[in-house]
Amino acid sequence: MKTVDEALAYLLSKVVPTTQVEDVSIHSALGRVLSQDITSQYNVPPNDNSMMDGYAVRACDIQADKVFKISQRIAAGSVGDFLEAETVARIFTGATMPQGADSVIMQEEAVEIEGGIKFLVSSVRPAQNVRHTGEDISQGAVILAKGHKLRAQDLGLIASIGIAQINVYQPLTIATFTTGDELLEPGDAPEAGKIYNANRYILAGLIPQLGFELIDLGRVPDTLEATIETLKKAVSIADVVVTTGGVSVGDEDHIKPAVEQIGQLDLWKVKMKPGKPLAYGHVMNKPFIGLPGNPVSAFSTFNLFARPFLLSMQGQKYVLPQPIWLKAKFDWTKKGFRQEFVRARLENQGKDTVVTIFPNQGSGVLTSTVWADGLAVIPENSTITKDDLVAYYPF
Amino acid sequence: MKTVDEALAYLLSKVVPTTQVEDVSIHSALGRVLSQDITSQYNVPPNDNSMMDGYAVRACDIQADKVFKISQRIAAGSVGDFLEAETVARIFTGATMPQGADSVIMQEEAVEIEGGIKFLVSSVRPAQNVRHTGEDISQGAVILAKGHKLRAQDLGLIASIGIAQINVYQPLTIATFTTGDELLEPGDAPEAGKIYNANRYILAGLIPQLGFELIDLGRVPDTLEATIETLKKAVSIADVVVTTGGVSVGDEDHIKPAVEQIGQLDLWKVKMKPGKPLAYGHVMNKPFIGLPGNPVSAFSTFNLFARPFLLSMQGQKYVLPQPIWLKAKFDWTKKGFRQEFVRARLENQGKDTVVTIFPNQGSGVLTSTVWADGLAVIPENSTITKDDLVAYYPF
Repeated sequence: MKTVDEALAYLLSKVVPTTQVEDVSIHSALGRVLSQDITSQYNVPPNDNSMMDGYAVRACDIQADKVFKISQRIAAGSVGDFLEAETVARIFTGATMPQGADSVIMQEEAVEIEGGIKFLVSSVRPAQNVRHTGEDISQGAVILAKGHKLRAQDLGLIASIGIAQINVYQPLTIATFTTGDELLEPGDAPEAGKIYNANRYILAGLIPQLGFELIDLGRVPDTLEATIETLKKAVSIADVVVTTGGVSVGDEDHIKPAVEQIGQLDLWKVKMKPGKPLAYGHVMNKPFIGLPGNPVSAFSTFNLFARPFLLSMQGQKYVLPQPIWLKAKFDWTKKGFRQEFVRARLENQGKDTVVTIFPNQGSGVLTSTVWADGLAVIPENSTITKDDLVAYYPF
Repeated sequence: MKTVDEALAYLLSKVVPTTQVEDVSIHSALGRVLSQDITSQYNVPPNDNSMMDGYAVRACDIQADKVFKISQRIAAGSVGDFLEAETVARIFTGATMPQGADSVIMQEEAVEIEGGIKFLVSSVRPAQNVRHTGEDISQGAVILAKGHKLRAQDLGLIASIGIAQINVYQPLTIATFTTGDELLEPGDAPEAGKIYNANRYILAGLIPQLGFELIDLGRVPDTLEATIETLKKAVSIADVVVTTGGVSVGDEDHIKPAVEQIGQLDLWKVKMKPGKPLAYGHVMNKPFIGLPGNPVSAFSTFNLFARPFLLSMQGQKYVLPQPIWLKAKFDWTKKGFRQEFVRARLENQGKDTVVTIFPNQGSGVLTSTVWADGLAVIPENSTITKDDLVAYYPF
């Protein structure tokens, strides 16, 4: 048996990141992964500019009750003239400071009078209310690194240095299929001895959510021939194959012999609960990940193993989820020899954020994953007492 | 001035949730919001079934060294016969328990011998390794409530009760435009006095990310006429209008007079930093939200105000972000009379998760939102000392 950390480290060591790239507009680059560093050609802001609507002044000129001539008006987007001594410039938020000026007095502190303007302040600090050249980004700086997955604010930052097109990795194409003759598809009439296929729809959510392209090959009959045929099809059209079910050692499990016949397979029992069996291999040089057939296990192992593997293959740099350490609201009295990932969520009690868990942690209870917002980890051979710190991983 | 809580409560009180619904396949329902409760017609699992590959037995028959006849073989998906006393059934994970049997012995604890099978255990607990009827979902239970936003595991749960199509709200259509003559679009050559438009691309990320349809009307010249014309167009094609910029009280800000001329507008100074000015109103009965022009403020106010407003309008039930209370890794010595939302992220030091903040919290520093994974709140008139608990809101 491998531990979770061993299995994960092994999987990540086997990743061959994609090299397929494309140019996309930043207008539609949400969730894409940068294939190269983004370096700024410019300072942001490019010039000193006003943080306020008000008056650009020379700080040394300012005195109480002094009347100033308004020598010019500088709207955002226009460029003013040199600010002559003893004059001020009407200026608006974002407008470039005129040469000669060093500060801005906000309009609420100014009174227009006959022949000019006077201020309600008797002095001003040089650089007050001025945003300086390069304060946000300095010319030549790497603003975002290769392997970064783009969020809304990242797109804004790239825009702010004038870049409209960026080079990103093409999304991986992931073929999935589910196995199990005991399965019906939703919409089918119920049949004795059969249950509805949940895994197919879990994968149809998880895979696009992470930015991958899904090719859903549906459900495959529990025969060796059908499994081999579907595997061949999958590797011919996708970058990776992810399946659920068929990876136990039971007589009815055909994934293992099918992959072995046309590729290589490692089948592991991972020291974790839920989700013991996990298969990893290759078919025609395409990676293959076989998740357990139990839906709670499939969901958990996808998040713990397939997700970091696929993100890493997609070129993403930071793929391991980071735990938040918080106090347990529960007791866990039964030591297990496997690391346990319990369905959990956070609860606030005043200024205390605690981790609470679903009462029925049975691996057959998919409701637990729906109730939960994350997983809490019970280390192997351990108990947890209320108020102990536990590692919580949000989904 | 309104406090953040007052502004938010007011906005949420004004929401008129959408009533536009449609049927979609659960295969493509990720991120959609349920327009009605989902109730289960069935028990899940529908019958007692085996949690293991092994042998279905009558617990009362089991003794050490006894040899049993294997009377039948039940694969997942098939239905067995009544289990005669003193016999066992070969059974596989997920297969329905035959009548008469009450327990499963895993195959690792069985040895096939001449004439049958014997077990390495001398007794078995009734119900051992059996998943019970309705253990996950009982018939008639509401498994997901109206207003729930669908995640991958929710789709799996809906599938597991045999439902293929669900009724969800149609995604809101959100028209956006940005204002400011000082703005260039990315790709344009730099010009003195001008800066690149970041807000347009921040919104082009935030809006689709939340599942809304974006209609991007681009950048509008700083004139009253152009602003009115674009507003009219926006309300004719979208459910909501969200703009950035033009909501200060400066002479060059045309959003306020434009909305007032063809609708109603409240312009608030919210007691928060960054992001003071915020506008809310209606044009031709469509809600209008005017965010500040500063990109850090636009991003923060979108998350704090526009996001819950829009999610609520989309029919979502729980729209307020929940804080995680964690220890500050920083000191905050300067009391402010406005509540401050500082760009923050989490850091693990052993089993201690702490909140750390970006060194430059200037509202011109968009880099801070890119560095950050969330916002930490500094209450008004407060200081923070290292190890104090602070409320952290992940983005």
